[in-house]
Amino acid sequence: MAKLTDGPESVGPDSALPHVVIVGGGFGGISAAKALRSVPVRITLIDRSNHHLFQPLLYQVATADLAPGQIASPIRQILRRQKNATVMMMEVIGVDPAERKVFANYLDHKNLAIPYDYLILATGAQQSYFGKEEWRKFAPGLKTLSDATAIRDRVLKAFEAAEMEEQTDRHPALMTFIFVGGGPTGVEMSGAIAELAHNTLGPEFRRIDPHRARVILIEAGPRILSAFSEELATRVRERLQRIGVEVIVGKKVEQIDQSGVIVGGERIYSHTVIWTAGVQPSPAGKWLGAATDRIGRVKVSPDLSVPGHPEVFVVGDTAFLEQDGRPLPGLAQVAMQGGRYAAAVIASRLRGRELGHGFHYRDKGNLAVVGRGFAILESAWMKLSGYSAWLVWALIHIHYLALFNNRLLVFAQWAWSYLTRQKGSRLIMRDGDIDLSEPDEEAK
Amino acid sequence: MAKLTDGPESVGPDSALPHVVIVGGGFGGISAAKALRSVPVRITLIDRSNHHLFQPLLYQVATADLAPGQIASPIRQILRRQKNATVMMMEVIGVDPAERKVFANYLDHKNLAIPYDYLILATGAQQSYFGKEEWRKFAPGLKTLSDATAIRDRVLKAFEAAEMEEQTDRHPALMTFIFVGGGPTGVEMSGAIAELAHNTLGPEFRRIDPHRARVILIEAGPRILSAFSEELATRVRERLQRIGVEVIVGKKVEQIDQSGVIVGGERIYSHTVIWTAGVQPSPAGKWLGAATDRIGRVKVSPDLSVPGHPEVFVVGDTAFLEQDGRPLPGLAQVAMQGGRYAAAVIASRLRGRELGHGFHYRDKGNLAVVGRGFAILESAWMKLSGYSAWLVWALIHIHYLALFNNRLLVFAQWAWSYLTRQKGSRLIMRDGDIDLSEPDEEAK
Repeated sequence: MAKLTDGPESVGPDSALPHVVIVGGGFGGISAAKALRSVPVRITLIDRSNHHLFQPLLYQVATADLAPGQIASPIRQILRRQKNATVMMMEVIGVDPAERKVFANYLDHKNLAIPYDYLILATGAQQSYFGKEEWRKFAPGLKTLSDATAIRDRVLKAFEAAEMEEQTDRHPALMTFIFVGGGPTGVEMSGAIAELAHNTLGPEFRRIDPHRARVILIEAGPRILSAFSEELATRVRERLQRIGVEVIVGKKVEQIDQSGVIVGGERIYSHTVIWTAGVQPSPAGKWLGAATDRIGRVKVSPDLSVPGHPEVFVVGDTAFLEQDGRPLPGLAQVAMQGGRYAAAVIASRLRGRELGHGFHYRDKGNLAVVGRGFAILESAWMKLSGYSAWLVWALIHIHYLALFNNRLLVFAQWAWSYLTRQKGSRLIMRDGDIDLSEPDEEAK
Repeated sequence: MAKLTDGPESVGPDSALPHVVIVGGGFGGISAAKALRSVPVRITLIDRSNHHLFQPLLYQVATADLAPGQIASPIRQILRRQKNATVMMMEVIGVDPAERKVFANYLDHKNLAIPYDYLILATGAQQSYFGKEEWRKFAPGLKTLSDATAIRDRVLKAFEAAEMEEQTDRHPALMTFIFVGGGPTGVEMSGAIAELAHNTLGPEFRRIDPHRARVILIEAGPRILSAFSEELATRVRERLQRIGVEVIVGKKVEQIDQSGVIVGGERIYSHTVIWTAGVQPSPAGKWLGAATDRIGRVKVSPDLSVPGHPEVFVVGDTAFLEQDGRPLPGLAQVAMQGGRYAAAVIASRLRGRELGHGFHYRDKGNLAVVGRGFAILESAWMKLSGYSAWLVWALIHIHYLALFNNRLLVFAQWAWSYLTRQKGSRLIMRDGDIDLSEPDEEAK
């Protein structure tokens, strides 16, 4: 296997220093890299894409509120002043924890071995269809920028198709948008699509009335937003219904196909079904041969290292650790704090000491936003809903986007959209049509 | 063939009014539609994409200066308040001028007939490879938003690949960017790529030095910018060379393949070759069976109508008309003025009169920009180069972007980029690698 050495053109960090390899340029990986800025190590951060993504706002690209560039920033740009960090755009395919090597592919180089002294796996999660892989092509999920622009294309094309479609019996399926999964993503996205249909697009069509679009949110559990208190979840449900989202709870989706979904025995015809129901961790557990929980998250020690491999850390969505009797949730905050903690452990060991305490997640509160001017906020010491929570949401997100150097532009975009009710990013980028073939006979 | 009637859900314009069909949502089509706002007609504007594109800034998407949404706006949004206009996203495939019908495809409907009383064809131009169609896949052109993001991906991936590539003999080809064609697009894009490599990317790479990237502009004619005076073209050439663009003139590109180009008998290895050399008009001339010039532009009457069909107008890049002994150039201004003129002829005829004068293009001057803070401006009464021309360029473009509702955001983006020398939109959206296979033996 090939070895990644510093080439003759290298202007990189001193190769005598301990080598920290970080896999993943999400919240966990970037936070770890930044926390190692002044530590005497050389860092290689590996990601298969060239950009860090502000995941909590990804749905706003799918709903045409923000452009891709407003929530994503090149990882190189984020780390450009940190001279001890080298960024590599390649795909990690495995780890040999005994030999302390990461394996990766790039271009025509396969199975390249990258030796490490410390390894931080911050490889996140991907969409899970709970074993129903065949649903993926009918109900795309939302994890990457191209997922988001694909969903945006799909939603916008459905209205275009309805405007041109003379067979009016096809209109209901074209103008029905179904979101499967009542977590924050499903709630926020269905609310934004209802606003798009009912506020933004109304004046732009001549033959159809976008106000008649149906937006349906389906949750199999007894209520939406199970991570929030019942009181706030109820407020959100009322708000969703007021802006025109039909909320179905306690019914399982039994089938998804090109005609739509079957839920609780009833078929709902729709050309646009979006999957926001489940996630599964990255295969880091398999790479390491480590013990995992039921869904595949690596069971880490209290210091976030892998049992038996104190030099390997797993942070964020791919790690399993209980705190106060409950597993840590898959939130940006958990990943960021985890990345910084792992960096602190490494810095401490290099000074010949161990950190005196295990990882402790500080819950700063949980937010969800439903359309223009309404959000809920829940933390250990407060619950808030409505416009005031929305202001808190907007301020916090503008603050965190500081990471991206473009918070002023996002702010300008939001201010513009808020004042004009326009959506700033309604481009259909892909060629090709949506599928208008007749529903399967069997599916009926 | 199916007929496009107003469906039962129609909220569109009064169908007793004369029907003006406009094909193309570029500068010509949008200007014609807007000029018909208060005229008693119903308008159907047809385009195969959902957005109007501000073509003169398209290269800035390819060079990562602007995001796609900043130079494109949904046609529906532009015309949302104009109630006599219906927008259709479909692809026109032909015209029957005798029967006064346009034929179009959308979704699973093929060859749909749309009757018209007046027809304005504003179908623009596309890339021409002068019969060397096989060059297209090695040297993409720049006509659509996806062309622009594809070029952006290609350029950014070349740097990523070089950073990881340990075989340093592969570095020169990865870090050589060739632009074929010394017109405004080639000049402006090569200047911006030189800035990207030499100013923006420098601090972000650790193993390669982006300053060593070669940017080469090749023009077969005796000089670049043949539409400008020799004096200004010379200034631009000096400026390009100062910011690190190698300019080759008077040599023909004889071959383009995956290894690079052969120019004047010499091979230059490059993984990134961009075609900015030629355009050809849309097939409107074939649709109409009308007389065309050598490259296929429809020879129109002085009132921009097609000889023998006074109800059919051709405007913009697809029309051929001489003024002062020279064909009108393929510029946004010509298309906009042509679209407005055709609308005026229609409005006049509906009042039972003919316009007293033929179309006369008013040349407001020609601009080209080379990197940060340098442009040239040439009109009948002035020539300007340098920073002052760049300020004029920036003001004019911000003014015209008013069409898009987002001039403030573009201004903010430019101001930010200017101050920080950052490029705001450096996302690699597509999966898949650039081709690093060995050069063909035959090609050597």
